[in-house]
Amino acid sequence: MEIFRTRQAVRAAVGRWKRAGESVGLVPTMGYLHEGHLALVRAARAENDRVIVSIFVNPTQFSPGEDYAVYPRDEARDLALLEAEGVDGVFVPSVEEMYPSGPAAVGTAVDPGRLGRILIGRLRPGHFRGVATVVSKLFNIVQPDRAYFGEKDYQQLLVIRQMVRDLDMPVTIRGVPIVRDADGLAMSSRNVRLSPADRAAAAVLSRALDAAEARMAEGPVTAAALRRLIEETIRAEPRAEIRSVDVRDAATLAPLRGIVRRPAVALLAARFGDVFLIDNRVLTPPVAPPGP
Amino acid sequence: MEIFRTRQAVRAAVGRWKRAGESVGLVPTMGYLHEGHLALVRAARAENDRVIVSIFVNPTQFSPGEDYAVYPRDEARDLALLEAEGVDGVFVPSVEEMYPSGPAAVGTAVDPGRLGRILIGRLRPGHFRGVATVVSKLFNIVQPDRAYFGEKDYQQLLVIRQMVRDLDMPVTIRGVPIVRDADGLAMSSRNVRLSPADRAAAAVLSRALDAAEARMAEGPVTAAALRRLIEETIRAEPRAEIRSVDVRDAATLAPLRGIVRRPAVALLAARFGDVFLIDNRVLTPPVAPPGP
Repeated sequence: MEIFRTRQAVRAAVGRWKRAGESVGLVPTMGYLHEGHLALVRAARAENDRVIVSIFVNPTQFSPGEDYAVYPRDEARDLALLEAEGVDGVFVPSVEEMYPSGPAAVGTAVDPGRLGRILIGRLRPGHFRGVATVVSKLFNIVQPDRAYFGEKDYQQLLVIRQMVRDLDMPVTIRGVPIVRDADGLAMSSRNVRLSPADRAAAAVLSRALDAAEARMAEGPVTAAALRRLIEETIRAEPRAEIRSVDVRDAATLAPLRGIVRRPAVALLAARFGDVFLIDNRVLTPPVAPPGP
Repeated sequence: MEIFRTRQAVRAAVGRWKRAGESVGLVPTMGYLHEGHLALVRAARAENDRVIVSIFVNPTQFSPGEDYAVYPRDEARDLALLEAEGVDGVFVPSVEEMYPSGPAAVGTAVDPGRLGRILIGRLRPGHFRGVATVVSKLFNIVQPDRAYFGEKDYQQLLVIRQMVRDLDMPVTIRGVPIVRDADGLAMSSRNVRLSPADRAAAAVLSRALDAAEARMAEGPVTAAALRRLIEETIRAEPRAEIRSVDVRDAATLAPLRGIVRRPAVALLAARFGDVFLIDNRVLTPPVAPPGP
C-alpha cells in the first residue's frame, strides 16, 4: 500500500495505473475509520482495479465553534485498517498541501446552491460549500472512475450527485448503505466522543426511524405525522437534544404535503452533550392494493 | 474535422485520442470567430496533437438586459474558418445540451469569490460565476491537457487561472496576446455591432492605453495619474461612454497606491452606442538606473 502526502505523488501513481488501462475507485474520508468506511472500501474494491482512500479533515466544511479541533484522528490505526483491506493507495495531505494559501483565503469555491442551504445547510452554514469544494479538488487530483460515499450523509450524497451532474464531472458516484452498531446507532467517527451514557441513549435515533418505517408500512400517513412520531420518540430520551427532524422527497429533498405517495426520506440531527449526530431512513409507501 | 453536438460525442472522440497517447488542446469560444480566436487556435495547434474548439454562447454569463439575444452568431462561417486552420473537432452544443434542466435552474455553480466581484464583476454581476461554471463544465467534458484564452479578457483569464489552481484542475492554462486591427482596436466579436462612426471612434481605447504605456516609460508615475491620463484620452472622444478605468496589480488586480513599482495592468471598459467593449495593457515600470 502506497502512502501519498502530496497531490503530485497521488496523481503520478494514478496516471501510471490509468495508462496501464486500470480503473480507479476513490473513497474520500475524514479518517478515524469505522465499519461504515470499510463498507465503502469493499464496494470500491469490488468494481475497480485500484482503490485510493483519502483521509483529510477538511477545515473549510466546519464553522467556527464546531468540532474541527476535536474531530478524532488516528492515522496509524487508519492506515493499518486500510492495509488489511487491500487498498492500493492512501492520500493523506496536510491542510497546507490542500490549501497552499490557507483555508481561509477567499478564492474559488463550488457552490451547491439551494440544496446546500436547506436542512443541515441551515444548521451548518457554508458546510456543503466546503464539502463540494474539497470533493471537487479530490476528484481533480485523483481523477477516479468511481467515488464512494455513505448514505448516512444523505444530503451530502445528493449535493455531490447534483455537482457531478451540473458540472459534467467525469466520475460515477456510488452511495453505500448505512452500517449500524448492534443497537442500531449509525456508525460515525464522532460516536467515540460520546460519554457512555450518551452512547447508550443515542440508540434512540434509529429507534425513531424504525418507528416511522413501521408506521409507513401500516398504510397512508402524512409527512407531518411521521415527523411528529420521530420527534416524540426522540423526546422520550432526555439526553437527546433535537436539532432537526424532516420528512422530505427522497430524490429532491423538497417538502412533502399531505399523504406520502412517493419515496420519502426521514432526516434527523440531534446533539448528545457536544456531539452532533445525524441519521436518516428512506421510507417507501407500500404498494396500494388494487382498487375496487 | 469532426463536429460534435453532444457531450457524449466529444468525450468519446477525446477518449480515443488520449488512449492513443495524443495530447489535446481546447479553445473555448462564443463563436463569431476573428483573428484573435485564430491566434488561440494556432497556439493550441503548435503544442497539442489534437485541437478542439468549442462554440457556445453561454446564457448564464449574461445578465438580463445584456446582449445575449443579439450576440453575433454564424456557425457556418465559424466552421469554415476552423476547418481551414486544421482543427480536429468542434464542440457546438445547444443550450439544452449544456443545461438540461434549463440555464435558470438553481444548481451547482463555481464561484470565483472576490476576484469575480470586482471590476467587470461589479459592472456585470454574476458574469464571472457564469464563466467559471461553464468553463468547468467544458473542462470536465473535454478533459483537455491545455486550454487557451485571450488576454483581452484579462480578468477572465485571472479568474480561470485562480479556479484551476484553487480546484486543482488537471489542465494547463495558456494566455494568448491580444490581436488588434490596424488602428489598434482589440479584436472582438462585438465589433461587428458597432456603427461605422463608432467603429472609427473605438480606436480611442487603444490610443489611451498607448498613452499610458508611453507615460510609464518616461519614469516614475502613480496609478492614479495613469488612470486620469487614460480617462482624459477617452473623454476626448465624445462617442465613447466610459464604464470603468482601473490601474491595478497585474497579478492580483489589487488596487495600487502611489508610484507604480510592480507590473500593473490598465483595464478599461466603455460603451459605444449599445456595444460594450473592453481592452487592457500590462504596464511594466522601467528598470531604475543604479543609484549613486
